[in-house]
Amino acid sequence: MIDYIREGAEIYRRSFATIRAETDLSGMPSEVAGVAVRMVHGCGMVDLVEDLAWTDNAVTAARAALHDGAPVLCDAAMVAAGVTRRRLPADNDVVCTLSDERVPELARELGTTRSAAAMELWRDRLEGSVVAIGNAPTALFRLLEMIEQGAGRPAAVVGVPVGFIGAVESKQALAAHPTGLEHLVVHGRRGGSAMAVSAVNAIASEEE
Amino acid sequence: MIDYIREGAEIYRRSFATIRAETDLSGMPSEVAGVAVRMVHGCGMVDLVEDLAWTDNAVTAARAALHDGAPVLCDAAMVAAGVTRRRLPADNDVVCTLSDERVPELARELGTTRSAAAMELWRDRLEGSVVAIGNAPTALFRLLEMIEQGAGRPAAVVGVPVGFIGAVESKQALAAHPTGLEHLVVHGRRGGSAMAVSAVNAIASEEE
Repeated sequence: MIDYIREGAEIYRRSFATIRAETDLSGMPSEVAGVAVRMVHGCGMVDLVEDLAWTDNAVTAARAALHDGAPVLCDAAMVAAGVTRRRLPADNDVVCTLSDERVPELARELGTTRSAAAMELWRDRLEGSVVAIGNAPTALFRLLEMIEQGAGRPAAVVGVPVGFIGAVESKQALAAHPTGLEHLVVHGRRGGSAMAVSAVNAIASEEE
Repeated sequence: MIDYIREGAEIYRRSFATIRAETDLSGMPSEVAGVAVRMVHGCGMVDLVEDLAWTDNAVTAARAALHDGAPVLCDAAMVAAGVTRRRLPADNDVVCTLSDERVPELARELGTTRSAAAMELWRDRLEGSVVAIGNAPTALFRLLEMIEQGAGRPAAVVGVPVGFIGAVESKQALAAHPTGLEHLVVHGRRGGSAMAVSAVNAIASEEE
């Protein structure tokens, strides 16, 4: 038998203790710090907090929206799959439109990626929603364009698209958006669906 | 309108060119290098390759197993959700047993986590399978115990559990397993379901 800790609660306790010992969470509102800890937990990197940026009210606004029944709009199926349903306070809808049959045609019409085209199908539900972009920079760019052009405003946007082309710039655009969206971003190339899920699950419930 | 690249193929081309320019893939078999590039693409971190370890035949063996119809056994629902079905060469089953109704009782009986208990339900399908552990160190530890005790041997194991308690040690245990399992691991704390998915999708098809 290999010697390892088998008790789930003890693993969580030690994990969060390690994270709190190794990260500097000062300067963060306590709600944001709680989310940051879970994001670090989900990726194994304590230096993630150095790239984290936020508006002070982002977590509070997103949490309130979920309590009021807002949907969680996700850019990727993996993000939607990862949201823990029992953490959601109002049996909230978790929506991903990427595989909608209308998306390929929309992408051709708009001359953009399928991820960006899928944003068009969010229009009806955008106002007051919680948005989680964990994969495609083009989805975040397109969302910002739509909002600037008058589409509904989300309660908050978790912006953690990942990668080498557009990820850095799309997150900068979110943080500097002229409409002043509530947001939580990880600047730089890092991000991804797992990171988006960690953030949403932490926003959904304060339970560690 | 924000200025950004909207063409999916061009985004991929530039992304992979950036990764190949910034990473040192020498010393890797070409099949492993192909998988490494996609793993870097999925997490945005070129230094991931420094923590990558592999057996030379791991990717080839996993790919051959998939062509022969092997199932992909995943420790987490997010991993299973992220595997791109159209990349799989033989309409392969993608299996996650974590939410099986027998798991909570099994976990109590065995005195371990639900993730580790869920491994018990893999026994019938383990021989010749492709295993992807993207979340729980205890799942990987338990799998290694089962194989050492005579359970079926997977064709290859993608071992990228994440976190602060057991992740480092479980991946070391896989790399040093006395039965000499074919494996691909990311040493250290980094890992996660998105990373496991990148690896499986790259193994499933050489298409970038």
